[in-house]
Amino acid sequence: MYNVNIERLKETLFTLSRIGYNEEDKGIYRPGFSAADFEARNWLMDLAQSEGFRTHMDGAGNVHIEYGPENTSAVVVGSHLDSVPAGGMFDGTLGVIAGLECLRVLKHHDIALKHPVRVVATAEEEGRFGGMFGAQALTGKLTPHDILTMHDADGYLLSDAMKSCGLDPMQALSAAFSPEDLKCFIELHIEQGPVLDQTGIQIGVVDGISGVFKWIVKLVGKADHAGTAPMEMRSDAFMGLADFAHEINRIIDEDGTEYSRITVGKAELKPGFAHTIAGEVDFTLVVRDMDQHIMEALSQACRKALSAIARRHQLMFEYEQVSWLAPQHCSPVLTDFIAEQAQQLGLNYQRMPSGAGHDCQFFTSLTETGLIFIPSVNGISHAPDEWSHWHDVEAGANLLLACVATQATSSGLVKATRKGDKKVTKIANNSNKKVG
Amino acid sequence: MYNVNIERLKETLFTLSRIGYNEEDKGIYRPGFSAADFEARNWLMDLAQSEGFRTHMDGAGNVHIEYGPENTSAVVVGSHLDSVPAGGMFDGTLGVIAGLECLRVLKHHDIALKHPVRVVATAEEEGRFGGMFGAQALTGKLTPHDILTMHDADGYLLSDAMKSCGLDPMQALSAAFSPEDLKCFIELHIEQGPVLDQTGIQIGVVDGISGVFKWIVKLVGKADHAGTAPMEMRSDAFMGLADFAHEINRIIDEDGTEYSRITVGKAELKPGFAHTIAGEVDFTLVVRDMDQHIMEALSQACRKALSAIARRHQLMFEYEQVSWLAPQHCSPVLTDFIAEQAQQLGLNYQRMPSGAGHDCQFFTSLTETGLIFIPSVNGISHAPDEWSHWHDVEAGANLLLACVATQATSSGLVKATRKGDKKVTKIANNSNKKVG
Repeated sequence: MYNVNIERLKETLFTLSRIGYNEEDKGIYRPGFSAADFEARNWLMDLAQSEGFRTHMDGAGNVHIEYGPENTSAVVVGSHLDSVPAGGMFDGTLGVIAGLECLRVLKHHDIALKHPVRVVATAEEEGRFGGMFGAQALTGKLTPHDILTMHDADGYLLSDAMKSCGLDPMQALSAAFSPEDLKCFIELHIEQGPVLDQTGIQIGVVDGISGVFKWIVKLVGKADHAGTAPMEMRSDAFMGLADFAHEINRIIDEDGTEYSRITVGKAELKPGFAHTIAGEVDFTLVVRDMDQHIMEALSQACRKALSAIARRHQLMFEYEQVSWLAPQHCSPVLTDFIAEQAQQLGLNYQRMPSGAGHDCQFFTSLTETGLIFIPSVNGISHAPDEWSHWHDVEAGANLLLACVATQATSSGLVKATRKGDKKVTKIANNSNKKVG
Repeated sequence: MYNVNIERLKETLFTLSRIGYNEEDKGIYRPGFSAADFEARNWLMDLAQSEGFRTHMDGAGNVHIEYGPENTSAVVVGSHLDSVPAGGMFDGTLGVIAGLECLRVLKHHDIALKHPVRVVATAEEEGRFGGMFGAQALTGKLTPHDILTMHDADGYLLSDAMKSCGLDPMQALSAAFSPEDLKCFIELHIEQGPVLDQTGIQIGVVDGISGVFKWIVKLVGKADHAGTAPMEMRSDAFMGLADFAHEINRIIDEDGTEYSRITVGKAELKPGFAHTIAGEVDFTLVVRDMDQHIMEALSQACRKALSAIARRHQLMFEYEQVSWLAPQHCSPVLTDFIAEQAQQLGLNYQRMPSGAGHDCQFFTSLTETGLIFIPSVNGISHAPDEWSHWHDVEAGANLLLACVATQATSSGLVKATRKGDKKVTKIANNSNKKVG
């Protein structure tokens, strides 16, 4: 089997990381449809073209790079080129540049392909204008209304940003793939969490993207003087929140799974004075799981716990469900296939959900879709010190190459030869794991 | 025995309540050394003078109104005339105007006094420039440095505010009483808490002002993506705070008393995003008790709980003790005396601490000091809907009159005839309690 050239991959990633780089905080600034974002897109197109690949930018700003036969369904590899403000050098770009490296290997070895391999560098995944814009365009999820109304935090319209990049906004609608354009979609990404790094496992074979719901919860009691109100006469809204937070582990133990996550990330005590009992607390509750029914059970359990606590503390309880996104499952067939490829390469891997959203989640309804993770050192991402060890990058890129080459050289979807390896984690020798 | 004239008292309180009154929010605005505050002081002096009492304003802006013999120690009654912004009509003013009403009754009945009765309307109790300015001046606690450096939240100097009211700031130092000027000090005040109102008791005989300490606590964990970080791999600073808040009742049960209060009134989660685990939480911890040793035990228990929780959640824990004010005990002899007077008037009363600070706390080191509470409806104060029923105002003013008249007509401090009634609560018929 062929391998990626890790030095070439490294060099390309480093070159890309200089575009939008900020000397001061060492962060990368390539927000969607910014000058730096388009500098990166044009650089990538020029590079790919100079290496002899077919390239074009579609109406949504996605860059396409293709190798192999034409007029048949493509094995598509994709991730994004844009970054959060002060982002790191692997988030998104790893999947794009590793995809390009796959094309280089396939071309270098002149491998006979039955399906073209296409790398898509998607546009505006990170959320400047709402996020996943390119992936939504590619999968036909965009509407003209979206295009005309989406704007950034300053009210700057997406359509104006697109025009400033030389695009006709409405042409984004023409970027949509037809199902027959695609054989499968595979994304390689950094985990952006601590699981692989802490467990010393090189590869995450992702089953799907967790579903998530978000509540804004309000508990209203009575703001009182912290000196004059005895403990048993208080309606302390903050104590209601504290009691609820204390129930979170019980709720997961009773109604959740190992994939459940419940987070209170934002809370405001009102009036918020040291000597005044909080008469009101407003907080966010974000709940995730891989199973829609589990999400419903967790929702019910949170509602029951909050109602009971509100009664106990004589608080008024109300909440607004701001969003409910169902879990997105990767293709079981493709996921089994990826796991078997990892096994054959001697990589240790584990099945896992993704708690963060990724471009691939929009492809699940369109084609066979898979997602591969490599470890993030200390779980850090969206920050200048986001890092992944090069041996993990190499392992991930070789796995992507194996998957892509196998699928592109065969007619029909290649499946795993053995079934039922789900949840099996093969731990290979990783004594050198921390040397990177 | 003589009684106060509740209609006259009511009318005087209503007249005073128009000074600094705001039509819009129905609140009273008489911050210390404001024009409205001095309008009230001058109105009070004119009124008292017109009724034949000796009056003067001292160098700190305190108004003195005296009746009875001169050149001997005075029975002093006092509270404040200034208000918080958007305050109510009883806080402070009740003690002043009820004191004036006592003088009127003593004068009307031409009672032969062995000691003069003096009403002091203190200056800047509520904290515009730090609070309790007049009481500190009267008790010799002020320094020239205080006078020159104290300022309001906008940086406006106290000394400039005093000058604008026609005062020479340094003359505040000459307002100090000598111990021999005072026979005793009694303050009548609204409770500003819910205890008397909820228990249906008319009078609080206050044992002292709770001691209080304030910490600013910081718990530092790791800000992580709420989707990618599994529950057991988090260092969630907010969950540390929630666990601590959950321990508060246990800490009081184990190391506190019925007078202990522990409050988290302010908390800031950082970065404070719904989808990010709080990497840091900064919060205030305010602890009160009537016993210095109990305060120390509570401090130790909070420290131990926070240390253990920090270890459990892998958090860094640090705190700064911003203040430590020891409890101020009222005179046991005078407190017993007040309790017995209440009993003789057929008023139901209970011994209780004050969780809020009052002018009288500065007098405890100088003379025999007592504090009387009447109920605040729903415990509300520092707000336009602060209210006390007139029958409670009448009861409190009659108790004040009985105490003042008894002390002023006798040589030497009058003591309770029976001892050891502490903690005994006499519940009289209060079936009409809520009619007011």
